[in-house]
Amino acid sequence: MRILLAGYGAMNVRVAKLAEERGHVITGIIVNRQNDYPYPAYSMESDWPDADVIIDFSHPELSLALISKAQLPIVMATTGQKENIIQALHDRSAELPVFFSANMSYGVHILTEIIKYSVPLLQNFDIELTEKHHRRKVDAPSGTLVKLYDAIKEQRAQSTPVYDRTNIHSARTAEEVGINVVRGGTIVGEHEVLFAGHDETIQIIHRAQSKDIFANGSIDVAEQLINRPPGYYTFDTL
Amino acid sequence: MRILLAGYGAMNVRVAKLAEERGHVITGIIVNRQNDYPYPAYSMESDWPDADVIIDFSHPELSLALISKAQLPIVMATTGQKENIIQALHDRSAELPVFFSANMSYGVHILTEIIKYSVPLLQNFDIELTEKHHRRKVDAPSGTLVKLYDAIKEQRAQSTPVYDRTNIHSARTAEEVGINVVRGGTIVGEHEVLFAGHDETIQIIHRAQSKDIFANGSIDVAEQLINRPPGYYTFDTL
Amino acid sequence: MRILLAGYGAMNVRVAKLAEERGHVITGIIVNRQNDYPYPAYSMESDWPDADVIIDFSHPELSLALISKAQLPIVMATTGQKENIIQALHDRSAELPVFFSANMSYGVHILTEIIKYSVPLLQNFDIELTEKHHRRKVDAPSGTLVKLYDAIKEQRAQSTPVYDRTNIHSARTAEEVGINVVRGGTIVGEHEVLFAGHDETIQIIHRAQSKDIFANGSIDVAEQLINRPPGYYTFDTL
Amino acid sequence: MRILLAGYGAMNVRVAKLAEERGHVITGIIVNRQNDYPYPAYSMESDWPDADVIIDFSHPELSLALISKAQLPIVMATTGQKENIIQALHDRSAELPVFFSANMSYGVHILTEIIKYSVPLLQNFDIELTEKHHRRKVDAPSGTLVKLYDAIKEQRAQSTPVYDRTNIHSARTAEEVGINVVRGGTIVGEHEVLFAGHDETIQIIHRAQSKDIFANGSIDVAEQLINRPPGYYTFDTL
Repeated sequence: MRILLAGYGAMNVRVAKLAEERGHVITGIIVNRQNDYPYPAYSMESDWPDADVIIDFSHPELSLALISKAQLPIVMATTGQKENIIQALHDRSAELPVFFSANMSYGVHILTEIIKYSVPLLQNFDIELTEKHHRRKVDAPSGTLVKLYDAIKEQRAQSTPVYDRTNIHSARTAEEVGINVVRGGTIVGEHEVLFAGHDETIQIIHRAQSKDIFANGSIDVAEQLINRPPGYYTFDTL
Repeated sequence: MRILLAGYGAMNVRVAKLAEERGHVITGIIVNRQNDYPYPAYSMESDWPDADVIIDFSHPELSLALISKAQLPIVMATTGQKENIIQALHDRSAELPVFFSANMSYGVHILTEIIKYSVPLLQNFDIELTEKHHRRKVDAPSGTLVKLYDAIKEQRAQSTPVYDRTNIHSARTAEEVGINVVRGGTIVGEHEVLFAGHDETIQIIHRAQSKDIFANGSIDVAEQLINRPPGYYTFDTL
Repeated sequence: MRILLAGYGAMNVRVAKLAEERGHVITGIIVNRQNDYPYPAYSMESDWPDADVIIDFSHPELSLALISKAQLPIVMATTGQKENIIQALHDRSAELPVFFSANMSYGVHILTEIIKYSVPLLQNFDIELTEKHHRRKVDAPSGTLVKLYDAIKEQRAQSTPVYDRTNIHSARTAEEVGINVVRGGTIVGEHEVLFAGHDETIQIIHRAQSKDIFANGSIDVAEQLINRPPGYYTFDTL
Repeated sequence: MRILLAGYGAMNVRVAKLAEERGHVITGIIVNRQNDYPYPAYSMESDWPDADVIIDFSHPELSLALISKAQLPIVMATTGQKENIIQALHDRSAELPVFFSANMSYGVHILTEIIKYSVPLLQNFDIELTEKHHRRKVDAPSGTLVKLYDAIKEQRAQSTPVYDRTNIHSARTAEEVGINVVRGGTIVGEHEVLFAGHDETIQIIHRAQSKDIFANGSIDVAEQLINRPPGYYTFDTL
């Protein structure tokens, strides 16, 4: 597979390395500023080299311009301006296969699917969510925890998040979903869904060990996307 | 719900207590030997009192006789002589709703369902199983772990169990499913399924806190079974 | 060992059962109200039977009166009016060996000791605390978590608790100690101390499976206390 | 701190990068074969550049020669020929501060210390060990698990390892220490010590997220070693 990378930040540096290890070829990178890159670098305006797919871990401005111009499948992993980017991808989806996910980890995607499957089966179980990330992460809770919570709320509409029990002086209701945020060290990312029932619990835990899961996830998606007809794809539909 | 208990060992003592707490009535117990019981005791030969359902945590001899004679729904939780008991239940299933499971915990049942759902989604992940039980448990691995392994093998036919890696001097193959057995203290029962992929893992853990989950599980089943038409039921079909 | 129980609520019912299983004898119970008890019941005013030790899981009013009158070693496990009870015990400690702890679990005591030992060794590690209890527990965080936090603060004086990170929009400082509270099902009690460093973590987790740990803890203490000279004892000094 | 690296395999590549990020300077590398390196490369025979310390992640042949010749502090992290290397280091320890550990992770060292502290306090608790590593790891159990087991056996002399309970048809004895080995995916390394008592457990878990902990560990040691008088040091004595 010949890959054109959009952006060449930390994530696409890893995509390039892992893609080559998997036997793929990086035909170039699309960037705003020229620099000393290990691959041929192209601006948005120039003629891009031949490729089978674009993998975009960049920023919304570049991504939106790229979506307008591209004539090949796009794996879109840029975060920010989510609605604009999704709209732009939809606009091109009659012509090209395009893919979007805010989290390229296949494991996180499957975790979400497992939770969607489990919640209706565990109706009498209380649900509590915990995420753990490195000490520098500023936003809380993580986007992935929010995605898990949304998946739970789809199945259990009366759910209400609880962020701090030390302020609450009454017993837990069945509707509450505790949200717990742990920050420390360099933890890449851990998400736990706890189902607590009468004298038994089920815990489902996803643990990321490096950001490579996002890079590899985008390559996995690209490998499938290039064989799909034009359309707008997500992990649910790919 | 009026319940007739078959056997009055440790499990049915708990069933009686929990059923009464849940508003049900124990109309009697069916036992081989008369003793000083807190409920009216009946032999296999006597006329049994009216009831809506039988919950049987006894032993195969009593269970097999009971299955032949019963004219009301049966929740069968006796272990041992599994094939004979299942056959006997099938023989009555045209007349009565009957239920069988070797493990009455609803959570363990759901754990098994979640694993069945997850395995095909996690094809590139290695699978390892660990169970933890109290120091007096003699059999290893636990029946529940075997059930989980069987569920995995249904989905991944080439699976092979590995019980001791300290004897193996080669790297793990994708087919291997490690089986790990921990014994200590008074641990009621813990089962972990680990899916280990590239830089990410998903762990699914069931933890039992007391044997009440088996007692409550049988009452939950009884509540549903009394509203079902005749037939042979398991957790999958109830 | 001959034991006199003060109070006969859920905890001392277990103490009686477990003590007898361990070969001890319950010579009577001291209670305020007469009732149908399985042991001889005595009021505060009556002559108490011979015994080697008193185990008191009752309430402050009864405990304070008992401390004044007792002529034998006392294991005090009553919670509430902590300062008054400790003062009263100190007042008798020249004559009798007396023991106090707000948490009779030996494992929780050792957990605290392990944490005290570990904190100075892990100076560059961030610390986060999580406790999990059943859905009916109203107070949060648990008394045991507070005890763990205090043990940490003794070693790392600049520690500051953080209860809700979703309100904070800056990165974690080294001084922060996250406090996370999970409530669900019938979880008896779980406490986790997480040390998160650069690319490595150490987690120390105590998990209680039943309230028997508090009952057995009090019997363990009694067995040792009866061989001690008069004095005020805690887990640290016994 | 000016560092001379012995060997330039995967580990010292990381040591160089992390040391520079921490403000240190790599003055050169000592290698057997010349190659295209990003630092000045020296053979064993050549004159080495000035430096404050040597960090050696190489192989025994190079390390033994280096130990004989070096005139500056040595952090020795080479594995293999352990006895010879320790002997050679002792021979130089009157002149130079030298350090040896088979595992440069500070966290693993502290884990071992915590276990040594905990075992005597938890005499009635059964102990079980579990290690998890990536699917390519051939040896089992890991060297670190063996180190933990040895630390336990020092405190509990009657300990006996058990590798496979599925072959044993009797209950666990107090002397047994279960050894469990999990292999899967790319897990960097996880070690768990479980203390299982009556209705309570304490789990102590170390989890490595990347091999950087070994690189950083060696730099931490170097920073301290250069301020020490001549002598043979380990984590216990530094």
